This record gives sequence, C-alpha cells and structure tokens, in this order.
Amino acid sequence: MKRITIVGYGNIGRAVLDAIEAAPDMECAGVVLRDRTKWKEKGVPAYLTVAEDVHELHKVDAALLCVPSRSVPDDAIKYLSRGIHTVDSYDLHGDAMVDLRQRLDAAGKAYGSVAVIGAGWDPGVNSMIRGIFEFSAPRGITYTNYGPGMSMGHTVAAKAIKGVRNALSVTIPLGTGLHRRMVYIELETGYDFTIVAAAIKTDGYFAKDETHVMQVEDVTALQDVGHGVNMVRKGASGRIDNQQFTFDMRINNPALTAQIMVAAARAACRQSPGCYTLLDIPIASLLYDDESTLTRRLI
Amino acid sequence: MKRITIVGYGNIGRAVLDAIEAAPDMECAGVVLRDRTKWKEKGVPAYLTVAEDVHELHKVDAALLCVPSRSVPDDAIKYLSRGIHTVDSYDLHGDAMVDLRQRLDAAGKAYGSVAVIGAGWDPGVNSMIRGIFEFSAPRGITYTNYGPGMSMGHTVAAKAIKGVRNALSVTIPLGTGLHRRMVYIELETGYDFTIVAAAIKTDGYFAKDETHVMQVEDVTALQDVGHGVNMVRKGASGRIDNQQFTFDMRINNPALTAQIMVAAARAACRQSPGCYTLLDIPIASLLYDDESTLTRRLI
Repeated sequence: MKRITIVGYGNIGRAVLDAIEAAPDMECAGVVLRDRTKWKEKGVPAYLTVAEDVHELHKVDAALLCVPSRSVPDDAIKYLSRGIHTVDSYDLHGDAMVDLRQRLDAAGKAYGSVAVIGAGWDPGVNSMIRGIFEFSAPRGITYTNYGPGMSMGHTVAAKAIKGVRNALSVTIPLGTGLHRRMVYIELETGYDFTIVAAAIKTDGYFAKDETHVMQVEDVTALQDVGHGVNMVRKGASGRIDNQQFTFDMRINNPALTAQIMVAAARAACRQSPGCYTLLDIPIASLLYDDESTLTRRLI
Repeated sequence: MKRITIVGYGNIGRAVLDAIEAAPDMECAGVVLRDRTKWKEKGVPAYLTVAEDVHELHKVDAALLCVPSRSVPDDAIKYLSRGIHTVDSYDLHGDAMVDLRQRLDAAGKAYGSVAVIGAGWDPGVNSMIRGIFEFSAPRGITYTNYGPGMSMGHTVAAKAIKGVRNALSVTIPLGTGLHRRMVYIELETGYDFTIVAAAIKTDGYFAKDETHVMQVEDVTALQDVGHGVNMVRKGASGRIDNQQFTFDMRINNPALTAQIMVAAARAACRQSPGCYTLLDIPIASLLYDDESTLTRRLI
C-alpha cells in the first residue's frame, strides 16, 4: 500500500482523493495546506489528516502537487530532497518543461527520489499519443485540436484585463490545430464594453486567434469542467503515405488530470531516481495489475 | 548506426526494408532466407547481402523476424543466444504470449540480448492504447473494433476447408467488439458451394461470428492490404463516470507493422537484457530524437 499525500486542495486535489480512494494499491496519507485552518472551507473531509508541512504526516511515499504550475518547481524540490516522490501536472511546454526536468532530475538523483512531471492530459496522455503517432508514421503532421472546453490560461488572462469582473474563455477547435476563443465576461460598473473587448482581443493570449467577446450577467452560470481533444495524424510508414490516425476524448477535465496523476504516482514508486515525463515511463508501470495479468488483458 | 537484419522477405520483410532505409539511425545488415537462391523471386534488391545464417553477415545489432508467428519462438532464441536483439510481431494473445515472454526473457538475460515481442499494431500499438485508456479511466469497458480489412488468420482457415481453391476473409466491425466475416472463395471443380459454405460457417474460426460466404471467379482481384481499427472506452476517472475515449486508424497493414517493428528495434538497442512487450517500453525509446528535442516537440 503506497501512502500518497495531496498538496493543495482545489479542483484537482479533490479529484485526486477520489482517484486514490478508488485505487487498490494506494491510500491517502493526508493533505498539505499552506493554512491548516482553511481545511473546512476547502472541503477536506474530516477523516483526513491536514498538515502544513509533510513531516507532520506518517510515512509518505509520494506527494501529488495539486498546485499552480508556477509553484511546482520549488514545491517539487522540497519533497524530492526529503526522499518523497513527486507528481505534477505542470503545463508549460517547451524550454520551461526541459528546464524543470533537468532541475528535478538532479534533485531526484541526489536524494534517491523520483519526479514525474507534466502528468496530466496535455502535457501527458496527449504527449504519449503524439509519440505513438510519430513512431507509427515518422513522416507527417500531427494536429492537436482542443475543446470545446474552458481554457484556464485564457480565462485568467481575460480576468486580468481592466474592467473585467469575471470571465470564462472557452476553446473551440477549428481543425488543423487552429482555435476560436469564446470569451464571456461580466463588466465592472463604469467600464465600456467595446474598449474592454478590444483590450482582450489585443492581449498576447488572444491576438493570434479568432476571438469573440460577449458580455453576460453571470459567468458562473456558464461554467462546466467538460473538455475534449481531437488529435489527427496523416503520415508515412516506410514508403507508404496516407496512414491515418485519430485520437479523441470527451472528458471531465479535473477528474482525468487527477486520475493520470495517481497513475503517475504508482509509476514513480517503480522507477529509479530521477525525473520522468510520461514519454519516459512504460505504460505497464502506470497500471495496477502484474505483468502476466496485463499481458492477458491488454496485449 | 544500428545494423538490422531482416529475417524472411514476404510482405512484412519488404516493408521493413523501406522503414529501415527511412530511419536516420539504422542500416540494413542483410536479409536471411532459408534458401538463398530464392532472393530474386522474393524480390530482395540486388544491393543487399543475402545469407542463410546470420553469422555470414557483418556486425548485426538486431534481427527483425518477419516470419510466421509459429516460427517466432525458436527463431528468436537462435538470435538471442548469439547476443543479437530480436523483434517480432507475434500475434497470438493470452497464454501463448505470456509463455513466449517467459522463454525469451530467460534467453535474453542468459545471453545479454533483448527481445521485443508482439511489436505490430495488434498486439502492439493497440495494446498501448488499451493501456492508456485503462490508466486514464480504470473502471469501464474498452471495445476493439477491427476492420474493414483482410484477416490473415480467417483467410488461412477458409483456405484449409476442403473444396476451397483460394479465399479471402474480410473483417467488418459491427461495434462493441463484434465482427462480421465476409468470406470470398474460389471453388475447386466438383465441389458443391452450399456444402463448402456450410463447412466454413461451422469452422471454429467462424462459428461464433455472423459469417457470409460468397463464391467469386478471382479472389486476388478483391485483395488489398488496407486495414483499420476503432477502439472506444467509456469509463470512470475517480468518481466521475462517462469519460469517453476513441482511437481510430486507417492504415496499410504491412507498412504499419513494419514501421512499428523498426521502432521496436531502436528500443531493443536501448533496454537492458530480457523480453519486453510494447507495454514495458517507454515511448521515447521507440523514437529517434534525443530527450530534449522530444520534450520540446511532443510534450
């Protein structure tokens, strides 16, 4: 039985608890909050231990970092340096991910612990699918089409615009990796909608995409956490062109992210020290059953 | 540069050569045929060395076994025991796969070589997808729907029926993992179609499925090597039901199988001795590029 601690208790943290409780090989070692007194307000069940530092919890194998991406690097190193494995769903691509990997790899190797980074649906499962597409047809193009669903990054960016009281940015897939942004805002009193809408459309997050801004009375009435992706590749295997691959999912976003993080925690307990993305971990090590059972069921 | 030998030169062997020649990190070390004099008839290009035994070839890293599944176990052990990695697309599921894995694992560990087994599209890539589906939503049902495309096993079974001169069995997906078998046969002179058709329908390969048998003049005029699969899972992540996943591909069958085998040969050169299915190999190790490049492009 691996003992898993949940760090942070927002949407993802709550869903992580559900996934831990459904896993036959894991139990929750407690929740770490910056401010312990907020446990009730955050909805932590009374039967869980709440700590402000992980040393207050008994025998922790892995910490699931359910915190904003910007907090991940420092948080991860804190746990790794105590010999506790970490899993995050860090969602910055490119250089930021490469840097995180190098930092956590050094920490993991120094302290005998394992970090699994970018363990969500994108980066994460979608990265694995892009990899499978590519070794199956090395020459070709993959398009990742997100949505329809709420974009957290774009919603935060819209909220930061002056005159916006509350916002929701929904990503609509247009195909070939292009997206429309549907932005629903509540206007602060005294602001002009046309000016605020123009400010959103010229913001770096939105300037490159087709963006529509709409004023609504109540943004929360529009929110749901469903999301989706449609990935397509057309490419060549050897000399043969026109090999066609599609991956599609329609999912509850926090529930899926949490479930993937829990699978990654299982895998973390099985790797040698260092830092891994989901491309570096065998699929079997993310699954509960033993080798022969998996071979009989999945192969 | 890894040097790869092709064992057998049928549909798959030919496609493997194309995939090796397109790979930046591999070259073909030659072709092994049971009877060297048949090279021309089998279509081996004149610039390749043809051998009857691998010891005639210079410095071979891995052997791609493009032979029938029943020949795989003995052939693999022959190469593994000489320290040459092997890759096959062995296509028997269940106990046969578990047994093969145990035998080749022992051989690989004894001689310092690596076997990758079941490295085709099913078993193979589809097995990986089933694994990803399952750790993303551990409670639920996955359906694998094959086709439309030719089934080699069912075609061979139909050809074995008395009175059948030539046959083609096409698999049609009906959804929820059920399939229709469309069997096209040329009749031997002197046989009664009704009796032959009944014999096919009661054969173990066909008895459980909806099977239609049709008499045609020329089976070869109907053949093509296109195939496909549609895999769907509906399941739960944590407490959240109705998570929906679909994987679909429309592919040239030998070209895809060959490409996957070549990727598996790359991975074989990177694993420690023993036997692996595609569930036991990190996706990154099947791809050519280095870690940072892959992280930037795929994560």
